[in-house]
Parts: sequence; structure tokens; C-alpha cells
Amino acid sequence: MNISETAAFLKTMDRVLILTHVRPDGDTVGSAAALCRALRDLGKEAYLLYNPEITATYAPYAAPYWAPESFTPSHIVAVDVATPGLLPENAKVYADAVELCIDHHPSNSDYAARTCLDATAAAAGEIVCAVIRELTPLTPAIALPLYVAIATDCGCFQYANTTANTHRIAAELMALVDVSAVNKALFRTKSRVRLAMESRMVADMELYDNDRVVVMQIPLSLRQEFHATEADIEELSSLAALVEGTDCGITLRELKPGTVKISVRSGPRVDACAACAMLGGGGHRAAAGATVEGTMAQAKAAILDAVAHVTEA
Amino acid sequence: MNISETAAFLKTMDRVLILTHVRPDGDTVGSAAALCRALRDLGKEAYLLYNPEITATYAPYAAPYWAPESFTPSHIVAVDVATPGLLPENAKVYADAVELCIDHHPSNSDYAARTCLDATAAAAGEIVCAVIRELTPLTPAIALPLYVAIATDCGCFQYANTTANTHRIAAELMALVDVSAVNKALFRTKSRVRLAMESRMVADMELYDNDRVVVMQIPLSLRQEFHATEADIEELSSLAALVEGTDCGITLRELKPGTVKISVRSGPRVDACAACAMLGGGGHRAAAGATVEGTMAQAKAAILDAVAHVTEA
Repeated sequence: MNISETAAFLKTMDRVLILTHVRPDGDTVGSAAALCRALRDLGKEAYLLYNPEITATYAPYAAPYWAPESFTPSHIVAVDVATPGLLPENAKVYADAVELCIDHHPSNSDYAARTCLDATAAAAGEIVCAVIRELTPLTPAIALPLYVAIATDCGCFQYANTTANTHRIAAELMALVDVSAVNKALFRTKSRVRLAMESRMVADMELYDNDRVVVMQIPLSLRQEFHATEADIEELSSLAALVEGTDCGITLRELKPGTVKISVRSGPRVDACAACAMLGGGGHRAAAGATVEGTMAQAKAAILDAVAHVTEA
Repeated sequence: MNISETAAFLKTMDRVLILTHVRPDGDTVGSAAALCRALRDLGKEAYLLYNPEITATYAPYAAPYWAPESFTPSHIVAVDVATPGLLPENAKVYADAVELCIDHHPSNSDYAARTCLDATAAAAGEIVCAVIRELTPLTPAIALPLYVAIATDCGCFQYANTTANTHRIAAELMALVDVSAVNKALFRTKSRVRLAMESRMVADMELYDNDRVVVMQIPLSLRQEFHATEADIEELSSLAALVEGTDCGITLRELKPGTVKISVRSGPRVDACAACAMLGGGGHRAAAGATVEGTMAQAKAAILDAVAHVTEA
């Protein structure tokens, strides 16, 4: 569905429940909150399904919109959710009932009845912004979560997915709302625990493939040693991508004993999405992920194999 | 002078020499290069005065425009240079002859015959962009250095000086030129030396004023220990500003024995420019600097005193 069709489809709905993805980031939360606010501005009843993994970083944007227990939805919409497998546990009951998915992941599995997909968008928030423009005037209450959605998914306009359109939308949103506190909190603040963890990850990093591939690790023991919160660890996978001379940054995070979340950030030489797809994951060409069973060492071997395979191809 | 007057004034010039400031950053280099290119597009002879402190990071943008020894200028223009004291040694001979200064520093000393100052601009590059628009069409060769100028001075759209207009200009420039490689090189690449130095600075940081003021130090001994180049150290002063809970990040860098460069990055509570002005420096309210004589310990005591004084006021 294109933007206009998606807007028209949303207009026909009421009693809407909006779903976000596991380990919710700024894009899924901000896009969902902005869409929810816009639907309410149209006089509709709309809520976000509570996401049990929401962190303190993004909770403020979602908090006004969490659905009460009593809410019985008539329509289900998912934003930034590429596959049903990425739905939180409490959303699984709706996996087969998603009527509309708004997404920017090329790996979207087309699980929803209708999908509005634009893989050129830096964030789902860009698409949601275009849809909202056809529904109701942008307000500060819509602009703030939309800015969070877009700015977080493009690394505050640093990542290669940033386009002229991304900046155009940012200009439009910034004319409505002051984002300086948001930028400071999201992009220019690191806890002392996080700074200490980064130092350790740098000290312990490993280089492969003629120093072009760097691996950083966040074992459970590191989290425990520093008493790290989820917010301390958020987006730590961007650290590996900074190392000069490398063009493939792999971060292994032990979610629980025997389960490892793999994140890959890559330059043009390596298709991160293809590598992660070999391990059952997905994402974008330059930023992708997968969650695998096994030890950290096994996960490392698996993703290095996958990256080598993809690079050779 | 406003934008139109500045453009009209430049139209009257030929044989133009453009000056940049000491320890040249992306804004002074990018603005100067873009302006030089625009003047040449108008058929004028224009050069940048060689800046002996240019780093490998910014040299590529200036290199096509360095003035040959044989060039005798008829007109002198300075960009992003707030005071004559910020001119490199080889530019001092022109200190009293600057006919036009294009700048965004509120601390500009009005030393030039005419000044085009907009203290609300995130970068001198924003003003230069507006001036160029009235002179000649924007081209990729103009857009790239302008993007570098603007993006570096607003921390790639993260700093509080970023406005809707900053994003509007970025959108315009990105429509002309692919900036993904520039963003990767400038904002998402850190040498291993730099990463190691950052780790040390974090480990050794000191907190003052109820943990709201953080001091980080780059003594000569640290540079020597890591064999750090100038590029390894560039913009290291942004690190202190990241520490959660602080709103005043002070970085002390020993330029040579007995000379310390102080950089201050601050939130609304602390006027960094006023604090640095007490030590003979200047800059912006949220980002300022000063160079002082004395030991690291003396410089630290002096700037902590100045910050306390400014905060109390």
C-alpha cells in the first residue's frame, strides 16, 4: 500500500491497538506513539500494546498511550515490526491478526494483511510522518515522538540511511518542537557505567579478516560486574562500527546463558542483512541482527562464518 | 552587514585571499573552501591562505585552494575567525587588513572593516551558504565543503545550536552530493589510539561541584605514550560533555609545556563563553575555549574558578 492508501485505510478504523517490536527502540516506540496520537486527534480510540521490554529511555514517549487491560481492539496495526517473530510475548496472540504493518525493513515477511513498506526510508517514522500528514495536522505532541523515531534510527543523521528527505522531515518537526533536550539525552549522554563498559569492550576487542572485521562482546559477566541496566547497554552495538580501518562491526551480547544477540554494522563490502539472515535474523544491508542459541564462542564462530560467506559471494 | 550586502560586497572583489583560524576545524575550512569555489565560479581569482595547522581530516577540502607563494591578494576575507588573535602566525600580517569577516561567534571582536555576523547560525557555513546562494548556483563542489562546515560545528545535528534551518540546508546540500562517506569518516570513525586515549581519560576523569562539573585531561605525556597524532586528538573535548549527570564538561589539553588549551562544553546552567572570557578566551554560550599559560593544575584551578564565578552570577 502506498501512503495515501494507508492513510485512507487507517481512516476506516477505530478502536486501534498498535504493536511494537521486542527490545523496543526509538523508531518502533516513537512511530507507534505518533500514530496513536494522530488517530486520537482524529477522534478515534487508539492505544499501544504495553511492551514489557520498554526501557527508561523510551518509556516517556509510550507511557501516555499504553492500553488498559479493559481495552478490546477492533483493529491491529504494527509499526517497524518486520516479522511476527519480533513481536513481544504478550503480542503473539495478535500475530495472525495484524491488518496493517508500516515498516521500512527490506526483510519484512509480509505477514500482515496489508503492508506499507518503504525500504528507502531511514526510519519507519518517516513513513508514519507521511501517513499522518494525510490524516491530521502535525502538532508538537506528534512531532516529538516522530523526531525520536527518525533521529534514533539514523544515528542522529550520521548513518548512511540518512537522506535529504530525512533532513527535510527533521526541519519540519523542529519547527514545531524543541528537540535539544532529546538530542542531549539520546545522543550526548553516557552513564559512567556505560563509559566503563565501553572502555572494557575496546580493550578486549578482537580483529579478524585482515583487521577489517571487529568483534566486541558483552557477556552477562560484564553486565553483572558493572551492575549495568538495560539503558546502560542500549545501542552499545554502535561502538564496534567506530573502529578505524574496519568496515564490519560485530557485537555479541549474551541475553541469557545459551542465548546470544548478534548485531552487525557494515560498510558496502559486507551485506549485514544477508549474513544475519543465514542465522535466522534480518534487518538492513548496513545494520542487521540475529538471536542465536549457543555460547558466546559458538555465536562468534557462526557470525564470522556467515560474514565470510556473504563477503565471498 | 546582512546576507545581500555581503554578497554584493564580495561581487566587487577580485584576487581574494581567505583566512581561516588556528587549529582549523571543519567550519572554518569548509566555509572558506566553499566560498573560494563560489568566487571562482564567478570568474574571480580566489585562494585560501595556507593554514600550517591543517590536519589530515580537513586538508582534502582546503588542498585545491591553497594560495601559491606568488599570489598577491587585493582583498582579504576571514571566515569563522572571531578575533585577530585566532589567526595563524602566517596570517598575522593581514590582521589589520581584513575587509570582510563572515562569522557566527557572539564573541566576535568586530576587527574587520565589515562583518557579517549571525550568532544564531549553528556554523559559519550556514551564513556562507546563504551568501553563496545570492552569488552563484550551489554545485557539488560547493555543497560538500559546506556540509562539512555545518555538520562538524553542530556535532552532526546533535548539538543544541542545531535549528530547523540547519536541517533545511543539509537537505539542500544532500540533494547535490552524497555525504555518507564524509559522515562515516568524520563522525563514526575512531582510531584505535583515540579509543585507547578516551578510555584513559574516562578512567582518570575528575568530578566537581556535586558531580555536575567533569574535568578530563590530555597531558603531553598521554599523547606521547600513545604516539597520538593531531587527528587522534581532534574534537576529544566532546567526550567530557557526554558524562551523565554533568552539565559542564571541561577538557584541558597541554599544547606544549606551560601552555594549556581549555575547552568547555556546557548546559544552560553554565555560560561557557563567559567563563572562558575570564581567561582571555571566547566562543559560544554552550561551547567555548581559552588558551592559558601555566601548568595543567593551574589551568584546571583557573577554569574551575571561572566556571564557579559564572555559575554563581
